[in-house]
Amino acid sequence: MDERIREHARVLVEWSARVERGDDVVVSVGADAHDLAVAVCERLGERGANVATTYASGELTRAYLRAHDGEFEASDHQLALYESADVVLSLGGGRNTSATADVPGATRQAYARAQTPVREARMDTRWVSTVHPTRSLAQQAGMALEEYQEFAYGAILRDWASLADEMGRMKDLLDGGSEVRLVKEATDLTMSIEGRTAVNSAASVAYDSHNLPSGEVFTAPYATEGEVFFDVPMTLHGKRVRDVRLTFEGGEVVDYSAETNQEVLEEILTTDEGARRLGELGIGMNRAIDRFTDNILFDEKMGDTVHLALGRAYDSNVPGGEEGNQSAVHVDMITDVSEGSRLEIDGEVVQRDGRFRWEEGFER
Amino acid sequence: MDERIREHARVLVEWSARVERGDDVVVSVGADAHDLAVAVCERLGERGANVATTYASGELTRAYLRAHDGEFEASDHQLALYESADVVLSLGGGRNTSATADVPGATRQAYARAQTPVREARMDTRWVSTVHPTRSLAQQAGMALEEYQEFAYGAILRDWASLADEMGRMKDLLDGGSEVRLVKEATDLTMSIEGRTAVNSAASVAYDSHNLPSGEVFTAPYATEGEVFFDVPMTLHGKRVRDVRLTFEGGEVVDYSAETNQEVLEEILTTDEGARRLGELGIGMNRAIDRFTDNILFDEKMGDTVHLALGRAYDSNVPGGEEGNQSAVHVDMITDVSEGSRLEIDGEVVQRDGRFRWEEGFER
Repeated sequence: MDERIREHARVLVEWSARVERGDDVVVSVGADAHDLAVAVCERLGERGANVATTYASGELTRAYLRAHDGEFEASDHQLALYESADVVLSLGGGRNTSATADVPGATRQAYARAQTPVREARMDTRWVSTVHPTRSLAQQAGMALEEYQEFAYGAILRDWASLADEMGRMKDLLDGGSEVRLVKEATDLTMSIEGRTAVNSAASVAYDSHNLPSGEVFTAPYATEGEVFFDVPMTLHGKRVRDVRLTFEGGEVVDYSAETNQEVLEEILTTDEGARRLGELGIGMNRAIDRFTDNILFDEKMGDTVHLALGRAYDSNVPGGEEGNQSAVHVDMITDVSEGSRLEIDGEVVQRDGRFRWEEGFER
Repeated sequence: MDERIREHARVLVEWSARVERGDDVVVSVGADAHDLAVAVCERLGERGANVATTYASGELTRAYLRAHDGEFEASDHQLALYESADVVLSLGGGRNTSATADVPGATRQAYARAQTPVREARMDTRWVSTVHPTRSLAQQAGMALEEYQEFAYGAILRDWASLADEMGRMKDLLDGGSEVRLVKEATDLTMSIEGRTAVNSAASVAYDSHNLPSGEVFTAPYATEGEVFFDVPMTLHGKRVRDVRLTFEGGEVVDYSAETNQEVLEEILTTDEGARRLGELGIGMNRAIDRFTDNILFDEKMGDTVHLALGRAYDSNVPGGEEGNQSAVHVDMITDVSEGSRLEIDGEVVQRDGRFRWEEGFER
């Protein structure tokens, strides 16, 4: 076995999920993530955790959803599994990133709504999502497999403690601020972050961070006003969506367009009421991610990018008592801020043309 | 997709598990059983069932067990899953039937004991085990893949209702009898079946039958006395075991031997107290299974064979109130009865040299 797979498993189990003896762990295995699953199970055995393995395959989901009449019920057995779990480790990596492309939008929405309790229970665990670098992900990135492996392990096998220190600066700025403004081509957007808590997403549940790789600081904005242009292409529901533009008034999307596959955007926006509001503002800070690979797990963490998500807000951004945005969806969209851009907090520039204020070359 | 895969899924979901709308179904997917899982999920979608998919891989199990210190706990999240499930469909078919061959016996035993509540909960569902004909199973059988597919689908895609009628005759004989005697080379074994109920195993939960293919009639014997010789080779815990001989006194194994890998037999017999007693007597009646393929799911159903299992008895054989044999194991061993053999119930021959008493050529 490639030693990097073992190292990936070690970071996931120890740094990210902080697995302890006796933890009930669900390992979700993507259809092509078998090798990583072997390494993860080895590490979980060493830790003395209890393991249940689930199978995640777009092809199975497609077959099930297309055959169903659309009157979905809550799935009590899945709910029971996640309610009893302490940790959920999702090992992504399938065989075809477009495996569910021909599932009708209405079916997908109905299923997502019915699965809400299951998803919530899963998010009440120490969950971590990662990916095994598969051929299909390499293809999605337009890269050879070995090249993609280099890229992926470069982003995953970082000195996370040291990156956490740097990201702490951005968290402090956001926690102290009340309004964020993003300005760039076709974009002038303001959002309130008053009373919200930013997450220093250092790829560990100890930081309320649930992705590996991570390397972003995010919060839950509201009262969004203005226009935003997402120039980074993305694949949503198996379809390539380009050049999304959104207009917000009073916190809600009132106008939208996309250059390709606009119907996917429409599908997302009509899932429920919360799908028209923002659930996340994230600032990418992982500079080991040096190119777009059309995979949100990596793209949104890239240095020189900012992303916004429509839909559900994470509880960790919303202090006790208050309720963040609720929705069955959480869809991230990315904008490149490497040139001609600025990010302001309460009128003060904190990032310009990709440079943070504590970095060399930053211009106020 | 091979139309036989779809047909296999149809028989499994409809005839075997009798899946209804709203059933909470767990689909356990073997590492190479993906294609069958797609067809099964399609059929479950059509039926309006709720689906959770688990992943079954000997390689994951091996990695986990070898790394663990052996102090296993009950796995509450797995227990919760199976306790909430109505149906469990196990789609076997991995990549290497010897994947767990180097797991120490003591570890395997300790894990099996700790998993007892999970196994019991699983067996309280409408569970059905089947296999997808994979390359590794073809190799195990010493057959080419396409040849093996022909064989497997021949055994699986039967007219089960009609086979159930024939098997009903054997069930009636067993239900009316009190003592079974098996006589053949190196074998003279008597067992009590008084008060036990035979299962007409017609590959459907409607018949208390949980294997696809099936095609056997089985009951739960006790008070076993005498000697038995199992001349059909088998793979147990990834190791080939040949020519097992057992001697019973007062219902318990008091002497044993095997020509190869005797330590596997010893490991099984020392798992717990119940592992030294019989849990099952089965009579193979599926004549579409016309050769040994070193897979218990098929071999034990073959016409011209009788099998006995050490360990746990099935509840369906034991009428309410009474308790059948309890054990963490259930290990089937097969003997060829095609020549020089007879099976008697209360002194009357019901099968001689493979022929049943209602078949042409039967000699009383």
